[in-house]
Amino acid sequence: MNQFIHESAQIGENVKVGIYAVIHADVTIGHDAEIGDHVIIFPGTVIGSKTKIGPHSVIGKQPGSNQRILRKAVAVPSLRIEEGVTVGACVVLYAGSVIHDGVFIGDHVSIREKVSVGSDSVVGRSVTIEIQTIIGERVLIQTGSYITGDTIIENDVFIGPMVSMSNDKYMGDRPYEMKGPHIQCGARVGNNATLLPGVRIGKNAIIGGGTVVTKDVPDDCVVVGNPQRSLPRKKGGE
Amino acid sequence: MNQFIHESAQIGENVKVGIYAVIHADVTIGHDAEIGDHVIIFPGTVIGSKTKIGPHSVIGKQPGSNQRILRKAVAVPSLRIEEGVTVGACVVLYAGSVIHDGVFIGDHVSIREKVSVGSDSVVGRSVTIEIQTIIGERVLIQTGSYITGDTIIENDVFIGPMVSMSNDKYMGDRPYEMKGPHIQCGARVGNNATLLPGVRIGKNAIIGGGTVVTKDVPDDCVVVGNPQRSLPRKKGGE
Amino acid sequence: MNQFIHESAQIGENVKVGIYAVIHADVTIGHDAEIGDHVIIFPGTVIGSKTKIGPHSVIGKQPGSNQRILRKAVAVPSLRIEEGVTVGACVVLYAGSVIHDGVFIGDHVSIREKVSVGSDSVVGRSVTIEIQTIIGERVLIQTGSYITGDTIIENDVFIGPMVSMSNDKYMGDRPYEMKGPHIQCGARVGNNATLLPGVRIGKNAIIGGGTVVTKDVPDDCVVVGNPQRSLPRKKGGE
Repeated sequence: MNQFIHESAQIGENVKVGIYAVIHADVTIGHDAEIGDHVIIFPGTVIGSKTKIGPHSVIGKQPGSNQRILRKAVAVPSLRIEEGVTVGACVVLYAGSVIHDGVFIGDHVSIREKVSVGSDSVVGRSVTIEIQTIIGERVLIQTGSYITGDTIIENDVFIGPMVSMSNDKYMGDRPYEMKGPHIQCGARVGNNATLLPGVRIGKNAIIGGGTVVTKDVPDDCVVVGNPQRSLPRKKGGE
Repeated sequence: MNQFIHESAQIGENVKVGIYAVIHADVTIGHDAEIGDHVIIFPGTVIGSKTKIGPHSVIGKQPGSNQRILRKAVAVPSLRIEEGVTVGACVVLYAGSVIHDGVFIGDHVSIREKVSVGSDSVVGRSVTIEIQTIIGERVLIQTGSYITGDTIIENDVFIGPMVSMSNDKYMGDRPYEMKGPHIQCGARVGNNATLLPGVRIGKNAIIGGGTVVTKDVPDDCVVVGNPQRSLPRKKGGE
Repeated sequence: MNQFIHESAQIGENVKVGIYAVIHADVTIGHDAEIGDHVIIFPGTVIGSKTKIGPHSVIGKQPGSNQRILRKAVAVPSLRIEEGVTVGACVVLYAGSVIHDGVFIGDHVSIREKVSVGSDSVVGRSVTIEIQTIIGERVLIQTGSYITGDTIIENDVFIGPMVSMSNDKYMGDRPYEMKGPHIQCGARVGNNATLLPGVRIGKNAIIGGGTVVTKDVPDDCVVVGNPQRSLPRKKGGE
């Protein structure tokens, strides 16, 4: 047989499992799910009904660490993926996170432990999401963006492509409570913007492409440049 | 047997197929091609002679979408890869695109549907190319760059590493005809430059590293900074 | 059997080899190593004891090239990974490099040939390291950064996320001896900074997030902005 399904795995009705897929112990898969060719699902992972996992993805991996990494990896509970989720190819999802109903995850994405991705959000291709980050509902994170650890992204936020964030003000030089950005409802962040640790981006604020955000941005404000400067917000848009 | 080759697949002479490779229905592979270990090739894909596909790549995948994605995925024709193409490891290529003769595609690349990559071009490692984009001949796209959808890149263009582009002026806030950059023959774009939606970069123009390009750049012009400013072009180069 | 282990491979005591793993000819694996599911290890690779290779990784690949690539690929010696190294999922490591003791390599990383990564360093997720680059000991390279070819990074350097570098001053337009940045001991580079070819960053210098570094930075100096400007270094830090 060209599949490996552990005898303790519970597979729902009408589930398709791809060629050379590996399903480890105690995995649960809901009805009408599709597991692609060469997918690997680690022990204990729970996958909801109608969810699709793309080829070559690695689902429910436990974290690791080395000497130089400050925050040591600890064992976490199994990954839970809810219903109607679509996961792309070559994706790596860690144990200890929850992916809510209807989320779309593009190819080459990596999501660490202790992360929550809210319903109907989109995580674009090659996006990386770090530990202990909360993403709201209907959030759109475009390709290649880097969501640092300890970040909060509220509902209906738009993050353009290749946006960068950080959560360590002293870059490992001294003790600091890691703090990622807090991006409030409806804010929009342009491509290749840089967000420094702990900045708050207000409701419906707009960050222009290439902006370096060094301090908080008030609600409804528009900022551009390096370092950021405010622009008047035109009536009716843009 | 440690390979899966569908009985309807047509495999040319002197083709090497790797261990645990999966070749689905109606795939055609030309003579002297090499298919790496663990490669997955989806139904109907056509692969030219002397083409090499690296290990763990996913070739000819159909697109998907969710509620939050504006442009819904539709089924597209099969992928066509021409002769003498080299594809790296862990690459994901979608159906509905054409990769022309002699192209080189690095590891971890992702290329969406309705894309054309011209002869002898290079797509560097971890580059992502979005839907409906046209890339000319002998183009060099360096590692980690993000080529947005609806982009035109003409012949002999150089795109440095980590360049970012966007195609949605209003970041999803209102209706807008998506328009990526149009980069004309021989232009060179420095590393980590940011190109805003719809900008035209003229023939042989030079964009310095880290520039934020907010408006069109004339032929032969040199621009740097955030926002861009023009520099005089020195005789004899630089 | 759902593994492929070539008869000439030498596997140490107490080694775990995952499902659908492929171990080619003349590979040597030290005792107590763990090779994940679906891992591919190319001929001649040497893996030290207690090293862990994550699922779907490609280890010891030989380089390739096409017409448009200036520096043609040549065959290189086998990859050597020393003891106690941790390699993530979907990683691609080339032949001709050395990964020293205790290094941690995140998921989706790609490291080219003729690279050395010093003991106890961390290469974050989706980082790409180009050809002929030397990385010191206890270096921390955060997620998504691009380390160009011909770069020197000394001991105890911190590279933030999404940092970009280049090594070709004329972007392929004329002959130039490729030269990447030289980053000296203890320097710290903020997220999404852009380093131009050949710049030297002095000992313990600090580069702010989003800075475009166009010229050398002296020891202990702090620079920010586009183009860079110097900031006074406050007593006691920040």
